[in-house]
Parts: sequence; structure tokens; C-alpha cells
Amino acid sequence: MPKASFMDTAICEAELAAERGEVPVGAVLVNENRIIAADGNRTLELNDPTAHAEILVIRRAAEILGSERLPGCDLYVTLEPCPMCAAAISFARIRRLYFGASDVKSGAVENGVRYFNDATCHHAPETYSGIQAETSSEILRRFFAARR
Amino acid sequence: MPKASFMDTAICEAELAAERGEVPVGAVLVNENRIIAADGNRTLELNDPTAHAEILVIRRAAEILGSERLPGCDLYVTLEPCPMCAAAISFARIRRLYFGASDVKSGAVENGVRYFNDATCHHAPETYSGIQAETSSEILRRFFAARR
Repeated sequence: MPKASFMDTAICEAELAAERGEVPVGAVLVNENRIIAADGNRTLELNDPTAHAEILVIRRAAEILGSERLPGCDLYVTLEPCPMCAAAISFARIRRLYFGASDVKSGAVENGVRYFNDATCHHAPETYSGIQAETSSEILRRFFAARR
Repeated sequence: MPKASFMDTAICEAELAAERGEVPVGAVLVNENRIIAADGNRTLELNDPTAHAEILVIRRAAEILGSERLPGCDLYVTLEPCPMCAAAISFARIRRLYFGASDVKSGAVENGVRYFNDATCHHAPETYSGIQAETSSEILRRFFAARR
């Protein structure tokens, strides 16, 4: 299964999040080339400020695999992770991170605190950015334009 | 109720975490001078890398109050928050943060990425550090010494 398909699934999850009125970000957790968790942002629905797409799939995968560490797992997410999600990715020992759009305002990988480059980050995933970035950006742009 | 009592409760939660074999950190979420959530670290028990004490009490308080934002709430935690917890504190719009021991290795408030001072942090709580710090440090020291 080509990697683009995993990001396609993450993009679908972002679109489903938009339909629920949530900031449209989607994430997919892959283990041994199989999706084991896919979800979108649900902070409003769950009344949970931590319910970003990445946190939801990491928690579900850890539950399924019965471990707080996911060293063989790769994460696909449509937007650059924030500091909360970047640290969770590090704690979970995620192997590879693929993300779409860059987030100048709130990102913590290429922007902001650049957590994976900090001395207090004790595991950094291999990171690949800009994957189908334009599609993910467009979903976010459309969502915020509709709310104005 | 003097503020020291809230930190005393957080310290009790840290001690309970140690008894469960978890890294001993405890947190208490206070709303209108009443504790609405208190818990300790449960990452091993729950197989959840995000189950830090702060995240658990924020999630529970948000559930109880029916809102992803907790603007009237104060958080007491025995150890300086990591980037995951610092960002969750910011997203939840926590009013005041009181913490005990400083965490040179993994903290994100006075150490590391100093998230609340970064331009990508859009809400920073009033922060008070060093509250009963020696007690919290000693619980951590004893825990790690016993594991060696």
C-alpha cells in the first residue's frame, strides 16, 4: 500500500471532522503497513481540549497494542503537530511522522518551539513534511472561510 | 482553604502513583476553591502515553464542567509540566498553574522549550513554581533510587 493512501485516509478524517464542526485535522496510525487507528479532531464533541486527532489515534493504538510505547508505528497527520501532540508522539516512541500542511501559528515541529530539536526531547521520530500539504491546507482554509 | 492544602492533595496523589509503580507525579484541578479532579500519573496502568496526572485531571474536569475550556480553573501539580501538559494547560485556558519541583530534563515551563513564553502559545496561565518543591523532589528521588 503506497504511503499516499495513508495520507488520503487522514485527509478523509479531516473532512469528516469539518462536517462535525471541528477544526479539520485528521490522523492515521500505521503498524506494520496496516492502519490500526484513524480519527479526526473531536475537542468540541468530547469536551476534551486534548482530543486532537493525533492524541486520539495514539491512545487508541496504545490500547489495542497493550503498550504505552509504539516503536514500530508511523503516524500520518494532515497538519503539523502542536507541542501537546509532538510530545505525545515522542513519549509513544513513534518511528516516523508524516505530516501535511505546515502550521506557522501553532506548530511545534518546523515552527514554534521545534520540540524534536530541543535537548528535553528524548525521542524524535523521522519526520517527513509537506505530504499532500495543499489538499490539507485547502480543507482548513475552506473551514475557516465558512465560519467567518 | 489555604492553597498549601491543594498541593498537599497533589503530593498524596504522587505518593499513590509511586505505590502503583508509576513515576510519582500528582495533580489537582481546582474550580471556585473546590477540588473537582485529583489524580496521579497512570501511563503504565492505562497503557496510555498521554496519561500524565495533568492530562487526566484536565480531561476529567472538562467532562464534569461540559466544556473543553476551563477558564476559571487552577491546576496544582507536583512537577514542572512537560510540553504535552503545558500545551494542554494552555488549550484548556487554565487560569493559574502552581507547580512543585523543577524538571530540568523534561520540563517545558522554566526549562526546555519554555512554551508559555513562545509566540505560538496563545494563552499562558499565571504561573507559580517551587511550591513544596522539596517534598515532591524527594518522592521522585526515592522512587528512582528504589528502582536502581
